[in-house]
Amino acid sequence: MEGERVLERPANQWTLTQRYTERAVEFIERSRSRPFFLYLAYSHPHTPVFASKEFWGKSPRGHYGDTVEEIDWSVRRIVETLTELKLDRNTLVVFTSDNGPWLTMRQLGGSAGMLRDGKGTTWEGGMRVPAIFWWPGRIQPQVVTGVGSTLDLTPTFASLARADLAKDRVYDSVDQSPTLLQGAPSARDVVFFYRLQDVYAVRMGPYKAHFVTESSFGEGTQRTEHDPPLLFNVDEDPSESFDISARHPDVLEKIRALVREHRATIQPVENQLNRYPPGEKRGEEGLRPWGK
Amino acid sequence: MEGERVLERPANQWTLTQRYTERAVEFIERSRSRPFFLYLAYSHPHTPVFASKEFWGKSPRGHYGDTVEEIDWSVRRIVETLTELKLDRNTLVVFTSDNGPWLTMRQLGGSAGMLRDGKGTTWEGGMRVPAIFWWPGRIQPQVVTGVGSTLDLTPTFASLARADLAKDRVYDSVDQSPTLLQGAPSARDVVFFYRLQDVYAVRMGPYKAHFVTESSFGEGTQRTEHDPPLLFNVDEDPSESFDISARHPDVLEKIRALVREHRATIQPVENQLNRYPPGEKRGEEGLRPWGK
Repeated sequence: MEGERVLERPANQWTLTQRYTERAVEFIERSRSRPFFLYLAYSHPHTPVFASKEFWGKSPRGHYGDTVEEIDWSVRRIVETLTELKLDRNTLVVFTSDNGPWLTMRQLGGSAGMLRDGKGTTWEGGMRVPAIFWWPGRIQPQVVTGVGSTLDLTPTFASLARADLAKDRVYDSVDQSPTLLQGAPSARDVVFFYRLQDVYAVRMGPYKAHFVTESSFGEGTQRTEHDPPLLFNVDEDPSESFDISARHPDVLEKIRALVREHRATIQPVENQLNRYPPGEKRGEEGLRPWGK
Repeated sequence: MEGERVLERPANQWTLTQRYTERAVEFIERSRSRPFFLYLAYSHPHTPVFASKEFWGKSPRGHYGDTVEEIDWSVRRIVETLTELKLDRNTLVVFTSDNGPWLTMRQLGGSAGMLRDGKGTTWEGGMRVPAIFWWPGRIQPQVVTGVGSTLDLTPTFASLARADLAKDRVYDSVDQSPTLLQGAPSARDVVFFYRLQDVYAVRMGPYKAHFVTESSFGEGTQRTEHDPPLLFNVDEDPSESFDISARHPDVLEKIRALVREHRATIQPVENQLNRYPPGEKRGEEGLRPWGK
């Protein structure tokens, strides 16, 4: 699609990554003399996995690896474009992902490494993703081990661009620009891990409590409630293997209080899936409606 | 111990890493004007886990992380010593491990990341370890994804030092210096994975076949024979999750032939555990004798 217009249906997915990249490069070249925002959400490495013929069958990691190598090539192409246009000292590039690997897809689904489980779950393998911030000369070079969230991108971008945030809404996010620019500790200590409208897990500093765990999308619904919640120290035990809830009732009490405070700030909203145009598919089968 | 002399019993393990490092640095300084070989096998991060007070309790990863940070500091100290003495262009430093993490030790046992299982098993998590070769100006900078083995260190060192290997024995090893110096592909394509005297698994190129799998030391003996063997493509599936034996009988036949050839080269030797001095402990309880 381009805007509301359908360009191609079905899309030729073999060349999709290349075409996204070329359009992104054109947009950057066209926008070089004014501020711009580019949101480049590649369809791959999500399944179904495709890559152009220069990359297909080339990676030892199989076709999943082929798509990753093509995206790697694409990121280089974009970064080189910024550098050639001398925009690199004036442009923040953020590379991240929306969720962990879809393990149900087996060899085509990626890997969360040492992290437990994958996409669709609130284990670390579903929720913790890489995030790279690139802005030569401005970013404080470092590895940040504190907690961050993609929610934080909005106020961080606004702060860096000296733009005001709209005042008619509540933000569950914090400005992370002091961490990026001066190496300050993360401005966030807490993350609520949702599945649909429910808080399944909470991260507080090194601790993560699971109130509910559930298997990945596409693997049936094995939903288990935990009372007391499971508790892990994900600094010491990033694979969430060793439940320490019995040793830390104090930590669990603090986390329960955080959830109560958080819930009090939530206001039910219109069912978001009703916003699809009439006659269009209303989201994945089996999704429960949002809100009450 | 120093040579045959017991210096301290029991050893003060809190300071052991520091003392190993200082003795290594002294040895390098003393040996600077002649060829030398230093084998520095730290006791840690093996359990029981200890670190000196500068490192104890400092790592977010817990006490296992403390020991890793102290070893990291130690490696830097040794590399800096070589550099200060201007020996760095004339010294090959190899950093590696004998096996994967001892998962039975839980938070104190380390992690094999995405690799399956750990120490004591012939899964990748027990057998595949990092290996870093450092020799500024001589090593071809690269990441080698081919197969290597610690067995290969002997002929590689001999080749680099232009020394002859003793001719009275058979070597199951290959000279990897062309890979290190010129970036040639690994000289090895096959690894036999033993547990005690038995071949449990075989790596051949991207494939790995498991004839026997068994749980880690200290977790009972759950030994399973596989016929046909389990087969994984560890390039595409490094976590050994997806058995592809049914699709590749040809690969299994080649691997069976390799095992037959390999077995024909083996000669029974004297039981190695009988070499302990009389009255001393003869190795870990439950170890079966080597040889027939």
